[in-house]
Amino acid sequence: MEAQLFVKMVLSSWNTQYAELWKLLDQLSDEQLQNETSPGRNRGIYLLGHLVAVTDGMLPLLDFGPRMYAQLDGIFVHLPDKSGQEMPTATTLKSNLKEINEVLSTSFNNLPAEQWFSRHTAVSEFDFISQPYRNKLNIIINRSNHMAYHVGQLVYLLK
Amino acid sequence: MEAQLFVKMVLSSWNTQYAELWKLLDQLSDEQLQNETSPGRNRGIYLLGHLVAVTDGMLPLLDFGPRMYAQLDGIFVHLPDKSGQEMPTATTLKSNLKEINEVLSTSFNNLPAEQWFSRHTAVSEFDFISQPYRNKLNIIINRSNHMAYHVGQLVYLLK
Repeated sequence: MEAQLFVKMVLSSWNTQYAELWKLLDQLSDEQLQNETSPGRNRGIYLLGHLVAVTDGMLPLLDFGPRMYAQLDGIFVHLPDKSGQEMPTATTLKSNLKEINEVLSTSFNNLPAEQWFSRHTAVSEFDFISQPYRNKLNIIINRSNHMAYHVGQLVYLLK
Repeated sequence: MEAQLFVKMVLSSWNTQYAELWKLLDQLSDEQLQNETSPGRNRGIYLLGHLVAVTDGMLPLLDFGPRMYAQLDGIFVHLPDKSGQEMPTATTLKSNLKEINEVLSTSFNNLPAEQWFSRHTAVSEFDFISQPYRNKLNIIINRSNHMAYHVGQLVYLLK
């Protein structure tokens, strides 16, 4: 019962950040997403792609299945903005994000509470013995903060 | 045991955000904090004061004691930036934050894991029966996201 409550608290925090991101995306035109969030800083489209790539990366990390859009890492994780690489459109990235989130949501709902406290796939069985906090639920806590950080920047694209 | 682990995960997420904030503050001069984080947006000093006020507000919310700097709410929570109100200096705000954090840290360490799942003071006993996630630990989850959001903006003050 208690584990169920923990999981609910953390997933609710993730869902809140995800909803904030969409509230914002729904207000921003594709042209606005091409703007820098502040002079000389990352553009909206880059931060959007970055969030899509990082969210996609949660699938194998949580053992929910293979990456759906691993190719995005090259542009949006390993390279900085304005690297000269061709980027997918905002429409494509938003549609990718929705697809990833459908798989994530289904997997979130199907994972029994206790299993959220099992190790994520980037930690070894051996290390997990002494570092039991490196579990699946912890990924959600960290990724919620990561999303909040970038939503704080994307909000500057609003007029 | 599980409750202890969960508390540790959430406090660690808060501590990470708090450390990120200080890593940034330590790199920013008082002059830089007077700058807008993006043209027309909140200045660094306002966001700093806002974070100090909101962190101070956690004390009564978590039943850790009275507010230490309640007067900051007037300038940094109820009013927007550039309201014309006189502001404390960055040095004063940073010192306030350190004092608040000392009380918070001590209280964090002294609170038994199970008590983190008791209601925070802004929810009634009645509502808590049906909304058990409105507990003290949930405040920490939410405030970590809130801090990450504004750290994402403050980082734009760096050259």
